[in-house]
Amino acid sequence: MLIVITGNGKGKTTSAIGQGIRALGRGKKVLMVQFIKSPQWKSGEDFVIEKLKGFDLIKGGKGFVGILGDNLPFEEHQLSAQKTFELAKAKLKDYDFLILDEINVALSLKLLDKDKVLSFLKEVPEEKVVILTGRGALPEIIELADLVSEIKEVKHPFKEGKKAKIGIEY
Amino acid sequence: MLIVITGNGKGKTTSAIGQGIRALGRGKKVLMVQFIKSPQWKSGEDFVIEKLKGFDLIKGGKGFVGILGDNLPFEEHQLSAQKTFELAKAKLKDYDFLILDEINVALSLKLLDKDKVLSFLKEVPEEKVVILTGRGALPEIIELADLVSEIKEVKHPFKEGKKAKIGIEY
Repeated sequence: MLIVITGNGKGKTTSAIGQGIRALGRGKKVLMVQFIKSPQWKSGEDFVIEKLKGFDLIKGGKGFVGILGDNLPFEEHQLSAQKTFELAKAKLKDYDFLILDEINVALSLKLLDKDKVLSFLKEVPEEKVVILTGRGALPEIIELADLVSEIKEVKHPFKEGKKAKIGIEY
Repeated sequence: MLIVITGNGKGKTTSAIGQGIRALGRGKKVLMVQFIKSPQWKSGEDFVIEKLKGFDLIKGGKGFVGILGDNLPFEEHQLSAQKTFELAKAKLKDYDFLILDEINVALSLKLLDKDKVLSFLKEVPEEKVVILTGRGALPEIIELADLVSEIKEVKHPFKEGKKAKIGIEY
């Protein structure tokens, strides 16, 4: 089963985490693999997930791409996304529930090869759940998915000049 | 800070839970109070949350209202929603982060008095976070909120005749 959580609104990653928590409560083994997000950059949920038996987290990104002071060569972002994707593919056999966090962004930035990701997704066994998050999901991904939610931003305090808040945004 | 998660799509409650997990990881005390959802009806996340120190859950509902075999008098649903709301109000002082799950539904069904809820929300201290979930958020609630996300259903397997799946829907 393929689930896509996309859109420009807040709550995509947290929704996937909540889904993971729900599945964990039903005895499923959960893995979240994060693209873009790097191990140097901790988010509040990381501290809880690392204590949850049966819910694993791999942060495979190198941070924002091309914005906010990023000065890594694009190829390095690509290489790390590709490695992360290969790792996720290899790990799927050990889990029931796989979250590919921000993979939609990695795809739209062309850090990952679309065709490789699509072939992988087509071969996910029926009994496993794979969730793909991130804004700008590609049409081919939406086409392939069983369930697609779009989170729309109706109102956001950033727009009113407030800063990202610890425990809320990260 | 008031956050509203509304819309007809999947992922509102799970997103609020993920937000709660994030806040918990930053040392916040989290309470989720559920309207509509009853203690008799367990969802996967309940089994995880009950083991998390600092994340509490109160299921204060009496189940679906007026559908799916519900035969409780409407007044009983109202009474239980009102009690649950009073409990949430009283508990706020002991928590940093309060999730009022499905309160938007309780409001649109008129299980709760809109004005009472609005006055409470207007008095939430700046440093606390209150999240309101459920489809059909009232315009007055959206107006008052700092951050509003709408989850739109783009594609849902129920529509193709598949049944609700344990660990996914509940």
